[in-house]
Order: sequence, then structure tokens, then C-alpha cells
Amino acid sequence: MSSYYTGPLANLIGELNKLPGIGPKSAQRLAFYLLQRPSEEVHRLADSILEAKERIRFCSTCYNLTEQNPCAICSDEQRNPEVVCVVEQARDVVAFERTRGFRGKYHVLQGVISPIDGIGPEKLRIKELVKRVEGEVVKEVVVATNLNAEGDVTAMYLARLLKPLGIKVTRLAQGLPVGSDLEYADEVTLGKALEGRREL
Amino acid sequence: MSSYYTGPLANLIGELNKLPGIGPKSAQRLAFYLLQRPSEEVHRLADSILEAKERIRFCSTCYNLTEQNPCAICSDEQRNPEVVCVVEQARDVVAFERTRGFRGKYHVLQGVISPIDGIGPEKLRIKELVKRVEGEVVKEVVVATNLNAEGDVTAMYLARLLKPLGIKVTRLAQGLPVGSDLEYADEVTLGKALEGRREL
Repeated sequence: MSSYYTGPLANLIGELNKLPGIGPKSAQRLAFYLLQRPSEEVHRLADSILEAKERIRFCSTCYNLTEQNPCAICSDEQRNPEVVCVVEQARDVVAFERTRGFRGKYHVLQGVISPIDGIGPEKLRIKELVKRVEGEVVKEVVVATNLNAEGDVTAMYLARLLKPLGIKVTRLAQGLPVGSDLEYADEVTLGKALEGRREL
Repeated sequence: MSSYYTGPLANLIGELNKLPGIGPKSAQRLAFYLLQRPSEEVHRLADSILEAKERIRFCSTCYNLTEQNPCAICSDEQRNPEVVCVVEQARDVVAFERTRGFRGKYHVLQGVISPIDGIGPEKLRIKELVKRVEGEVVKEVVVATNLNAEGDVTAMYLARLLKPLGIKVTRLAQGLPVGSDLEYADEVTLGKALEGRREL
């Protein structure tokens, strides 16, 4: 469909279309929207992209996104360095911080093991995790990868790698989401909830 | 939710969140995505935004988006200047061009009359349309605003304004979409289809 566009407009639509979740129709809509906004507003958007890209780096300890290195969480002495929560993406750190329930540290894998997509353990920050676990005072690694096939495979891989080092490796509880209705729960989740039942 | 972000990241998420159809969650996802892409790729996006914004202007005749002025359609002598198709947005021109069924010219209103949003006729390119109709050889104006309340009001407003100038004012046919199933047609569309029935 972009054959009806040429030059800078085609180019803009093409670049927007590369973003995740932005299909050709949305890219077209966004492009027309931007062309009709005041110039200052469009510059603010472009500048915010470039500035964030320039100033935000990966923390050299936990690989979370940060403006300072090491990041605020890694350098926070109030936090417990004995427990490291391993997540797939930087945005998962934000999700955990929002719960206010975790006071340990993090490690961002920057992906998940996925043979279909050609992502093996060597493409993730797993070497760095092992080095960290060996060098620091870590006692427990909470594997908080997503609860799907790739997340499970990654969790098992990490468990096999870290347990021999004397580290306790745990995984997030699987079960019914808070507020959910049994009638609408899928059978796998319900099975996991039963399996993981706890005494009251 | 953006209170968990600060500095350039909060700023980037905020700017992305202003785009149409991009809510806080999508803005966050896009921001993290951009921060994890190679720098060249991110610069290509920012540059394409700025370049398109700089080079693309409104045609001073039809108010479509264009790199040259007047635009390629306005300056195309193969096209019939007697029929002008009036649309709300520049992207509607693309939709018509894709049909390959219209060989007249266009006029982009850059919006639609919408009292709820405080958009009166004076905020649209209606003055410019009237001037154009008076000055050029226009015989027919096809009002191709959207088939909703605002589009209908705008169409009626234009008809009242242009008919006294001796211009034929037409509107797109309303009826059933091609390939549609009567069973699933809504009653208003079905009513319009019946009303506008044509002899075979």
C-alpha cells in the first residue's frame, strides 16, 4: 500500500511501520498526524527519541536501562544483594517495582531462550549473571521469566546452571490471577493452581 | 504509571503517549523497544520524522500534503478540473487514488464540522474551496466526507453554500459494502441501500 507514497512521506511511513505493534495502516495514520501537527511538537518528539537514546544506557551490573552506571537499584545499599530477580526485559523491572513487594536486586536477561527465533543462551546476559552470582553475595535467584514455553525453558536452563553453584533458584508462583472467576479460568492455569495449593 | 520513570525515559514515553492510538502501555513498550535498537536505526526514525515534516507542505490549491506546490494532482493537466472531490483528510485522497476510479481533482478540508469539538466551518478550508469554485471551471463538487453525523452536517453545509453558485453538489452512495452478507448488515445501512436502489 505504501506504493502510493513517495519520498519523505514513504520513508516516514516505512520507519514507523518498523515499530512493534504499528502496522501499515497505523504507520500511515501516525505519519499524517505528525505532518499536521505544529513543527515544535514534532521536533519535541524527535528530540525526546534522540535524547533518551543518547542518555540512557545499560547498567553494567544488572543490564537494566539507566542514566547512571551502576543504576539506582544496583547502587542502593538499602536493597538486599542476596536475592536477585531475573527478568527478560527492562520493563519487567518496572512491573516488579510497582508491586513495592521486592527489595532485592535485578538482572535483565535482555531476552529469552527461543530456538525458533535463533536465540540461544549465549545471546542473553546469562554469562554476566553467572559471573555476578559467583562474585557477589547472591543466595537466591528468583527466575521471573514469562510463564510461557520460552520462559519455562529459560528458567530450567538457569536452574541447571546455578544450582551447582549452591544457589537457591526459585520461580514465580503459577495460579489464578487475583479476582479471577473459576468458571472462566483455563484448565492449565487451574491445574497449576491446584498443584501449587497452600495450607491456610 | 509513568511516575516510575524519570528524566529522558519519562519524557520519551510522554511524547509517544501523545500520538493518536498510542496509550500509556504502548508508549512504554515503544520506548523500551527504541532504547534497545541500534543507534543508527533510532536516528533513521528521528530523521525521517524531521525530514518529512520539513519537506512536506500543504498544496496551496487543494491543501493535500505535497513536496511540490501546487501538488502533482493539481498540476496534472490530464485530470478533469470540472469535478472536485472534497475530503476530510489527506489520507482520504490516497484512498480514492487507490480505486483508480476518479480522474478529477481534490480539495482537502483538513477536518470536519464538529460543534462538540468546537470546530466550525471557519476552521476548515471551506473559504478556500468557495474561492476555488468561483475562480475555476468547477461544475461538480463530490462531497466525500465520512458517512457519520459530522460528515453529513459538513456535506449539507457545503451543499447549501455551493448550490447557489450553480454548482452540482453530490455525495457518495450509501449502501451495502461489496461482498457483504444481508444477514449481518445493520438496519440503517440496509435502509439506505433500499432507499438508493438502482434499476438494473
